[in-house]
Amino acid sequence: MGIVVLGTVALDSVKTPHGSQKNMLGGSAAHFSMSARLFAKVHLAAVVGEDFPAQHIDLFRRRGIDVSSLRKEKGSTFKWEGEYRHDDLNTACTLNTELGVLTCAFPRLDEAQRRIKSVFLANYDPELQYQFLKEMQQPAFVGLDTMNFWIHNKRSALEKIMKKAHLLVLNDAEARDLSLENNALTAARALTKYGPRMVIVKKGEHGALFYSRDCTFALPAFPLAAVVDPTGAGDTFAGGVMGYLAKAGKLTPTHLRRAIAYGTIAASYNVQGFGMQKTAAMAMADVRARFTEYVRFFKFS
Amino acid sequence: MGIVVLGTVALDSVKTPHGSQKNMLGGSAAHFSMSARLFAKVHLAAVVGEDFPAQHIDLFRRRGIDVSSLRKEKGSTFKWEGEYRHDDLNTACTLNTELGVLTCAFPRLDEAQRRIKSVFLANYDPELQYQFLKEMQQPAFVGLDTMNFWIHNKRSALEKIMKKAHLLVLNDAEARDLSLENNALTAARALTKYGPRMVIVKKGEHGALFYSRDCTFALPAFPLAAVVDPTGAGDTFAGGVMGYLAKAGKLTPTHLRRAIAYGTIAASYNVQGFGMQKTAAMAMADVRARFTEYVRFFKFS
Repeated sequence: MGIVVLGTVALDSVKTPHGSQKNMLGGSAAHFSMSARLFAKVHLAAVVGEDFPAQHIDLFRRRGIDVSSLRKEKGSTFKWEGEYRHDDLNTACTLNTELGVLTCAFPRLDEAQRRIKSVFLANYDPELQYQFLKEMQQPAFVGLDTMNFWIHNKRSALEKIMKKAHLLVLNDAEARDLSLENNALTAARALTKYGPRMVIVKKGEHGALFYSRDCTFALPAFPLAAVVDPTGAGDTFAGGVMGYLAKAGKLTPTHLRRAIAYGTIAASYNVQGFGMQKTAAMAMADVRARFTEYVRFFKFS
Repeated sequence: MGIVVLGTVALDSVKTPHGSQKNMLGGSAAHFSMSARLFAKVHLAAVVGEDFPAQHIDLFRRRGIDVSSLRKEKGSTFKWEGEYRHDDLNTACTLNTELGVLTCAFPRLDEAQRRIKSVFLANYDPELQYQFLKEMQQPAFVGLDTMNFWIHNKRSALEKIMKKAHLLVLNDAEARDLSLENNALTAARALTKYGPRMVIVKKGEHGALFYSRDCTFALPAFPLAAVVDPTGAGDTFAGGVMGYLAKAGKLTPTHLRRAIAYGTIAASYNVQGFGMQKTAAMAMADVRARFTEYVRFFKFS
């Protein structure tokens, strides 16, 4: 099964207590793809500028990611610069954002891609998420992410696209902001009233909470001694979840739990290196090995 | 198997977004006992003042807790007054503390109690924890908790008692403070160098991390829609952990995971009511029912 992801492909400059790196391959759709590719054929829909290095496109190709809808446009690639402070690796301080081509160009899908059933709308302008989804012929499973900027500035467009989503994936600050509830569980429950019948609240190093009317559970993050760079962990997580579900083709509680566990493991690799250093090198065997270790946490008999 | 707990029995006045209550039964040893009693015979060693209501002692008795070493002394009972703010139910703001009899009296054990193998030294002056432990004849399993005040003001006494502990149970801020490490896992690992071969880092609504040289795992908290009063959740958690281990008499990874799961479930009841409203009413059947639900979170196949 394939999966289409709409999102950003960016050049990230990041400073963390472990060092700093400039103009690394990043962006929501890039991180998502690098994780979801382990489970399903990923079709990456994004726009980059003329300055985007060919080696990054080669990397996507070598990892089996379909880049036919990764459009190169006149202008510069979206750039993000951020910093994580020693006392809170869960929260990025954005130092600079250059939208570049994002302001004037938009990815398009080809005929075959439009027939794919599974789609993830990574963090993007909700109006464009809606427009993109309309191009899909029969999206049977739609995952959606967003961010505080859209919650505060494009609320009605966000509510419109939420109606079309089956699974909402967002971090806990966003869940509280969007629902006006102060508790992760009540926030998730409140958000299902906007359309998505499933909500995952991502809590970074504290794991994730899943809520649907029939099934609620929490899973911890995989404990790590060092978090090198958390950028893209949430997208990597979503890639594991959506990728696994696209491959499984089922939404039973067991499949949902496995999906979130795989997302958790993929995210744990992501944070162990700058940018996509670790996830680009990650193989299914690595994920399976850590998954086995993770599952052992819960062996109660 | 029995278990001895040294700690405080207090009268707590608490304000949370769900309301406020004055002079409720509280204290580290009280919360611990109300949880551990489900698994093992608990011997409560603490000091209260003349103002301590007889009904509270009756409650302990009715719950099967041995109060023969709960000494009533001249003076007033230890009183704590605190508040939890809407945006952070994980952290208590202490408004007032009246030590009362804690400054001049100290619990003693009888002959039979001194022969008990399992002991929990709840948060207390580390010099007195040490003195108390010396009275035990052959403490085979010693659990230890502490708080920031002792970390900063009685560091060397704390290091001395840590050498005697097998299991250190403390919250993540304390773990970071005591180890000077910024990561829960590296903090736990560093703390084993002081003596305890096992460390549990309590993360409140985010669950708990267990570390020993042979076995590391994380477990989530039980998700709840409303946290009414988190006071004593950590002691209730420790009561479940220590109580289960005392009953099991084994420290295999499976038993440790079960112990932490039971502690998690007991703590989830604690936070659903003010003071010991819920834990005093909690029966083993309640804990088992929620444990079954909790274990289902981790059913991956």
